[in-house]
Amino acid sequence: MARIAVVAGDGIGPEVVAQARKVIDAVLPGVEATEYDLGAARYHRTGEVLPDSVLDELAGHDAILLGAVGDPTVPPGVLERGLLLKLRFAFDQYVNLRPSRLWPGVAGPLAAVKPGEVDLVVVREGTEGLYAGAGGSLHRDTPAEVATEESLNTRHGVERVIRDAFARAARRERRKVTLVHKTNVLTHAGSLWARAFEAVAAEHPDIATEYQHVDAAAMFLVTNPQRYDVVVTDNLFGDILTDIAAAVTGGIGLAASGCINPEGRYPSMFEPVHGSAPDIAGRGVADPVAAVLSAALLLDQLGHADAAARVTAAVAAELAGRTPGAALRTDEVGDRLAAHAVA
Amino acid sequence: MARIAVVAGDGIGPEVVAQARKVIDAVLPGVEATEYDLGAARYHRTGEVLPDSVLDELAGHDAILLGAVGDPTVPPGVLERGLLLKLRFAFDQYVNLRPSRLWPGVAGPLAAVKPGEVDLVVVREGTEGLYAGAGGSLHRDTPAEVATEESLNTRHGVERVIRDAFARAARRERRKVTLVHKTNVLTHAGSLWARAFEAVAAEHPDIATEYQHVDAAAMFLVTNPQRYDVVVTDNLFGDILTDIAAAVTGGIGLAASGCINPEGRYPSMFEPVHGSAPDIAGRGVADPVAAVLSAALLLDQLGHADAAARVTAAVAAELAGRTPGAALRTDEVGDRLAAHAVA
Ligand SMILES: CC(C)[C@H](C(=O)O)[C@@H](O)C(=O)O
Ligand SMILES: CC(C)[C@H](C(=O)O)[C@@H](O)C(=O)O
Repeated sequence: MARIAVVAGDGIGPEVVAQARKVIDAVLPGVEATEYDLGAARYHRTGEVLPDSVLDELAGHDAILLGAVGDPTVPPGVLERGLLLKLRFAFDQYVNLRPSRLWPGVAGPLAAVKPGEVDLVVVREGTEGLYAGAGGSLHRDTPAEVATEESLNTRHGVERVIRDAFARAARRERRKVTLVHKTNVLTHAGSLWARAFEAVAAEHPDIATEYQHVDAAAMFLVTNPQRYDVVVTDNLFGDILTDIAAAVTGGIGLAASGCINPEGRYPSMFEPVHGSAPDIAGRGVADPVAAVLSAALLLDQLGHADAAARVTAAVAAELAGRTPGAALRTDEVGDRLAAHAVA
Repeated sequence: MARIAVVAGDGIGPEVVAQARKVIDAVLPGVEATEYDLGAARYHRTGEVLPDSVLDELAGHDAILLGAVGDPTVPPGVLERGLLLKLRFAFDQYVNLRPSRLWPGVAGPLAAVKPGEVDLVVVREGTEGLYAGAGGSLHRDTPAEVATEESLNTRHGVERVIRDAFARAARRERRKVTLVHKTNVLTHAGSLWARAFEAVAAEHPDIATEYQHVDAAAMFLVTNPQRYDVVVTDNLFGDILTDIAAAVTGGIGLAASGCINPEGRYPSMFEPVHGSAPDIAGRGVADPVAAVLSAALLLDQLGHADAAARVTAAVAAELAGRTPGAALRTDEVGDRLAAHAVA
């Protein structure tokens, strides 16, 4: 039976993760879950972000379910670099998977887009690019200060994530992959991405392909998100584009994500895209849908496609039945989702 | 009298630039304009992108009015790096100014945003960051290939563009500047930007400030673009955010931009954000509004605030009088705008 590590984290993290676990337990009884105390609270209490011993223990699990970490009192970068990115890199989670659907029942911001019309997934590279942490500065706090950030891209890293995107497209209905980059300015990395994309595309004559510059893609996500099926892009572009995709499909409150090591050599990690939302924490009013959808991605990754589909169907029913603007209770939503998923 | 260089360029460039000139001639008779043949057509004919002699001649003008350059047959990067970016860097155009307004009469894509509610300007850094062209690759076309792109940021370059943003905010009603970066991941460059921003903000206690990560800003541009007044950000983030801002205010077809050297040591350059649109070129149906609004920015930069305001008012009247979806003729729009601007 699957062994998962649970990092509930800060703010609303524990509240929404509790619902995700409720739903997992309902559809896949017997999953063994171990809680790990990581995030802003632990950092403030002990000064520790991610001790090596914890990293080692996490490595022994089949997957990680994460709520949200952080609060405004932690300096920028500490938990991001020290915990989230550390896990993505240490566990070689090179596929950062971010599906976006405009669910029936959800009021999106776009006047011309109807529920059901948007169903895309961004396959964001997770272990390279500007997230490599390669950079530095000189002459700090003087007029001569200079600071650099370097985007590192390897054929190895780029090709494997593109391969994953094509494999996912092959399992979808529209079978289309859009590469997003900025080849006209970032000519070195852009050329590497474009050539790797062409090479993989050549192995998949049955899959439609297109290329867009990142600025154009950001625009089309607003004017015509319906056009996308699978989008593959680099780490930073993916960070930005997935927030736009979330925004046009009802907000990051509904957005799920997975940081995936497809080979399963290391545990993959699943987390809602939203943060710890300290402003509403502790009141039991956070929407657990993003955490529950992340749990569905987790189930799917662990080979329980059927359980994942039932969770997703439960979310669809829940959202379709909502009255826009009506109050919700986190635990009641969790109860309904769990009940629906096993009905 | 002002001397401007005109680079009409490719596709619809010449069509829309003709209207911009018509309007400039109407509000500021006697401007001396010299045409320069640059772009895809010249590149195909002669292999030349921007000869040094032309660069020298351009330097002798007060401003450059550009239509659009490029077509799908030119390899990516050739005209971008060799012409557009070359001019931005050679003429130290460190302020890349991109206003976005949802004009009355224009149907934006956002259901909850009404015309008149969005009026923001992005001050995008134009001479540094990932656009510096610092990068390379090794072992091309082998499994060992690696490609890098480096973001270069100097206190000099960052502080001056932030100063410009605050100066613009001081002349606007809401007096607010939002810094956008990704300080939690790009910690070196992010820290430089954040500290320079704080230092300049301290000199402007009367201007409200906020900071947002680029992914959050991309999202808020979709869910709540009304919140922004002046946004200052780096070169690449600005590229992406301004296309989102254009999308939520009716599309890049209406978006103007200026690449500005505020000290006037070099000519500033003004151009519509849209491209050469080969698909509709030569048919006289391109909307010249973005080119005309770019001409207004040009007039403003050359000290003719009054003429600029008249052009902007003409555009407002034109757009308010349009029937969504109705056909337009490029030259008729130009005639109406010129007539209105001097009425
Ligand atoms: C918190 C931050 C490091 C992270 C990222 O930039 O990847 C977040 O924005 C995300 O998208 O998961
Ligand atoms: C054409 C390209 C070099 C340019 C940029 O990236 O700056 C364009 O996208 C723009 O925004 O002006």
